[in-house]
Amino acid sequence: MIEKADSLQTQFSIGVKGTVRRTEKTPRGIEIVPSEIRILGIAQHPLPLDVTGRTPAEIDTRLNARVLDLRRDECGAVFRIEHVALEATRAFLSERGFVEVHTPRIIASATEGGAALFPVTYFEHDAFLAQSPQLYKEQLIMSFEKVFEIGSFFRAEESHTRRHLSEFISVDIEEAFAAAPDVMKVLEKLVRYVCGAVKKGCQRELEILKYRFDVPRTPFKRFTYDEILKELDGEGVDVPWGEDIPTPAFRTLGKIHPYFYFITDWPTKSKAFYINPQDENPKVCEGFDLMWQWVELASGGTRIHSKDLLIKRLTEHGLHPESFKFHLKVFDYGMPPHAGWAIGLERLIMMLTGKKNIREVVLFPRDRYRLTP
Amino acid sequence: MIEKADSLQTQFSIGVKGTVRRTEKTPRGIEIVPSEIRILGIAQHPLPLDVTGRTPAEIDTRLNARVLDLRRDECGAVFRIEHVALEATRAFLSERGFVEVHTPRIIASATEGGAALFPVTYFEHDAFLAQSPQLYKEQLIMSFEKVFEIGSFFRAEESHTRRHLSEFISVDIEEAFAAAPDVMKVLEKLVRYVCGAVKKGCQRELEILKYRFDVPRTPFKRFTYDEILKELDGEGVDVPWGEDIPTPAFRTLGKIHPYFYFITDWPTKSKAFYINPQDENPKVCEGFDLMWQWVELASGGTRIHSKDLLIKRLTEHGLHPESFKFHLKVFDYGMPPHAGWAIGLERLIMMLTGKKNIREVVLFPRDRYRLTP
Repeated sequence: MIEKADSLQTQFSIGVKGTVRRTEKTPRGIEIVPSEIRILGIAQHPLPLDVTGRTPAEIDTRLNARVLDLRRDECGAVFRIEHVALEATRAFLSERGFVEVHTPRIIASATEGGAALFPVTYFEHDAFLAQSPQLYKEQLIMSFEKVFEIGSFFRAEESHTRRHLSEFISVDIEEAFAAAPDVMKVLEKLVRYVCGAVKKGCQRELEILKYRFDVPRTPFKRFTYDEILKELDGEGVDVPWGEDIPTPAFRTLGKIHPYFYFITDWPTKSKAFYINPQDENPKVCEGFDLMWQWVELASGGTRIHSKDLLIKRLTEHGLHPESFKFHLKVFDYGMPPHAGWAIGLERLIMMLTGKKNIREVVLFPRDRYRLTP
Repeated sequence: MIEKADSLQTQFSIGVKGTVRRTEKTPRGIEIVPSEIRILGIAQHPLPLDVTGRTPAEIDTRLNARVLDLRRDECGAVFRIEHVALEATRAFLSERGFVEVHTPRIIASATEGGAALFPVTYFEHDAFLAQSPQLYKEQLIMSFEKVFEIGSFFRAEESHTRRHLSEFISVDIEEAFAAAPDVMKVLEKLVRYVCGAVKKGCQRELEILKYRFDVPRTPFKRFTYDEILKELDGEGVDVPWGEDIPTPAFRTLGKIHPYFYFITDWPTKSKAFYINPQDENPKVCEGFDLMWQWVELASGGTRIHSKDLLIKRLTEHGLHPESFKFHLKVFDYGMPPHAGWAIGLERLIMMLTGKKNIREVVLFPRDRYRLTP
């Protein structure tokens, strides 16, 4: 027995039969006096990573030996937090009558415009990987009124940053007979609920991560795009009206608003074709973003539900209404007004774990340069 | 007001302001005396489908106008049952310590062998859509011990049958320090739990579908492959030892066993390369199938956890160990013994709803001939 015990090395998988005793000598307060030891899985030393974390490794080294990396307490804690966050998200939405749906990942035409799609060979046809469930979830509120989907989507993201991936998890809702202010309320309450669930259910994990956050109060602050531009101007940052807000400007903003806030009333041209322009001033639309510090966590809005307006907007975006015929047809079936949003799950988990690189919160990340393991 | 009310047609989306009154004249026992009617979404008649269902339509006509089809009570009921079944599945697994994981859908090499993969153009690389989370979930039990994943997977399925799709939802678990009998117990208890949850939570939906089932008792019956062959022989159906059981033979079997049952001790060569051969008789393996009548609902087994044996089995399957190097490397990190299974969600939902065509239980099905809507 002693000989066998001597042959053991770190990361071996073993089975031990024996008597469990209290002791003060071990961190968990118990020890096992073995009557039998079985070696179930051998680890070949030297290992590519130090699992104790005492010798820190670069993120790429860690991702190359990801499952070993995930044995580190700090790494495992991230995904236990994700588990609880997802559980809370689904409970919150189901409770409020949202029906879980699964929309296709293989699609015949571009949903959000043509850019950044991965092509798939679908038998003898050309197809693409879906970037979002946007059009399908809009269609489904005709039948279910309130729907949600949580799943993988794909974007051929050329930029290699600490917050972009080419495969990511989107948390999507869509609601009939609702407008942006209605779904913004759902969103902020959901975020508060999930923060509460993680803070309560993951105390040990947050301790391991040495990370704290406060459960936010609702309602979150709401700023119009114009207010944000004025604020940025006061900080010496100039953003021309109509443009998206660039990352450096968002970083400035994050310093002024260190928590959750909404940006509303975006220029119509800065948002996707399906966001409803405001009746009084069609240059401004009913889209919104939920920000956390300088990071865009979620994006949504009131959708266009008039077929004619949707065709007009598609054309203005340089898209071909013909490619959207299956979607447009649905607007002839009595489409109710509707609104919705999408949260980037990984970004929410970054907020909940304090991680700065999105690759830390994905088990096997996919980006411009990484397709393995 | 009367003029406006006269202009309304079926499937219009409308808003009504008014006084709600009790009445015996309507099915729900209430009526609204309107003070204002707003038409929110017009339906262009004639519609492609009769939503009352009085004029039945072919499945292809229905799928082409799917969201209209989904407005039929009978159609909506299927997906409300799916919602409850998924909720129950996750609750059951979370309760037992399984951690939810998300594995990649875009992969560099074939997981299950090379057949039936959809190719993806991943920037300048060739890649594929994952058929299952098999190898990743096996790797992850090194870090989390018990994991589950529920999500879309892809198979370039050439056969056009009533139970095959090219995009489907898989419910997967994997457990460390476990063998087939352990995960079979998890599986049968899960099926019982989900049946109970649907029977209790979806009474109205089951009534709409005019469908009933009994919550099964556990343990389910267990038959070895040899016993099944003998039984088939008694029915005059000859299956040569070592072969997979063909569909007509399964149909015969379904008549003898009209409920849930396991088939165990399959010939090693009839199962995937990662299923563990039995120590005493390596021609027979530790794989199992969960059957419902004649349909294979789930499949699983004890996995190989010795790297050398895995390389041997890969080679015997005509696969190149080199293509699996990222997977094989993990077996040098102290891989514990493990076992798991995968349920085809759509097949489970067919069982729970009495539907005979898998396309009935998928919102927007994808098959050899269908890529839209």
